Amino acid sequence: METQRRPGGRSARVRAAVRQATLVEVTQRGYQGLTVENVAKRSGVHKTSIYRRWGGPEGLVADALELAATEPIPIPDTGTLAGDLRALTEAVRAGFASPQGGAIGSAFILAGMQNPAAAAAMQNFTAARRKQSVIVVDRAVERGELPATVDGDELIRFALAPIYYRIFVTHEPLTPDDATKAADAALAAARAGVL
Amino acid sequence: METQRRPGGRSARVRAAVRQATLVEVTQRGYQGLTVENVAKRSGVHKTSIYRRWGGPEGLVADALELAATEPIPIPDTGTLAGDLRALTEAVRAGFASPQGGAIGSAFILAGMQNPAAAAAMQNFTAARRKQSVIVVDRAVERGELPATVDGDELIRFALAPIYYRIFVTHEPLTPDDATKAADAALAAARAGVL
Repeated sequence: METQRRPGGRSARVRAAVRQATLVEVTQRGYQGLTVENVAKRSGVHKTSIYRRWGGPEGLVADALELAATEPIPIPDTGTLAGDLRALTEAVRAGFASPQGGAIGSAFILAGMQNPAAAAAMQNFTAARRKQSVIVVDRAVERGELPATVDGDELIRFALAPIYYRIFVTHEPLTPDDATKAADAALAAARAGVL
Repeated sequence: METQRRPGGRSARVRAAVRQATLVEVTQRGYQGLTVENVAKRSGVHKTSIYRRWGGPEGLVADALELAATEPIPIPDTGTLAGDLRALTEAVRAGFASPQGGAIGSAFILAGMQNPAAAAAMQNFTAARRKQSVIVVDRAVERGELPATVDGDELIRFALAPIYYRIFVTHEPLTPDDATKAADAALAAARAGVL
């Protein structure tokens, strides 16, 4: 008997429940505290089903990331690329500044650093998020703000990097001004033809 | 850590031995596998002395970072800021690409994300490293390559951020070209007056 995975069907509901439970567990206990047992309790899905389908904590995190990658994020449309990039970096800053966003971001990064499956999921997840965001660069090219030779993916990557660097590497304070500066610096590099 | 620290004295030798053992342990077992027991065995310093002076694994990592912060790093002097920044980012890329450098960097970042003392130590360590590197910006200002209003600390920070982002967050490949681009992008942003 083969499992049916109709969107919205039982399989999808089970997956959503397990993924939601994974996110809550990771937020409350961190990646190190994530266990199949607790995800089973919280989701109401049987432990053995979780082991069979997800393998263990690393599979749970990877799947949560895979599903999160498909979720649409709000894309700004301020009329200028500078405005759009600033809105993007500020949204990331504010997201990580919230207790839940900070805990989930931190757990995903920790998982990626400690487990190859989670690392691959992080690579896909961040690429998918950039792919959604790159529309602000495409629009700017259409408006004639930047030449079509610009690497939009790289521009978004460079706008975000200083945010992650401060929060997760150097543990320095991160203000809205820092988010603005990260956006402006990436844009200046793109305008100079570096990106 | 209320112990007296005479440079070159017994206390300094003990500290150096424990710090060296910490680095080796962290390289071989990662931050999660770092124990006072193993550091004691490897350093030849008694377990109870380590507990008394360093408290535990987080104190060991914080102290290793504190001592590492004072170590001089090679500072390039190529004659241009572009050349110096490229040499700096390439040195960081190559450092993390080596098995030992990658393991230590990863362990320090993991420790910083999981322990407040290690986070504070990471902030100090990265600031101290930037402070050593910022001389390349000072020289460029003296040569008239950039106005004195440039924020050298921020310029170095922005040159390094994309390197860490790729290695530890997105888990994307990192080539020497990527290191060059990170240096060039930060310099372009500084020239545009953003940094």
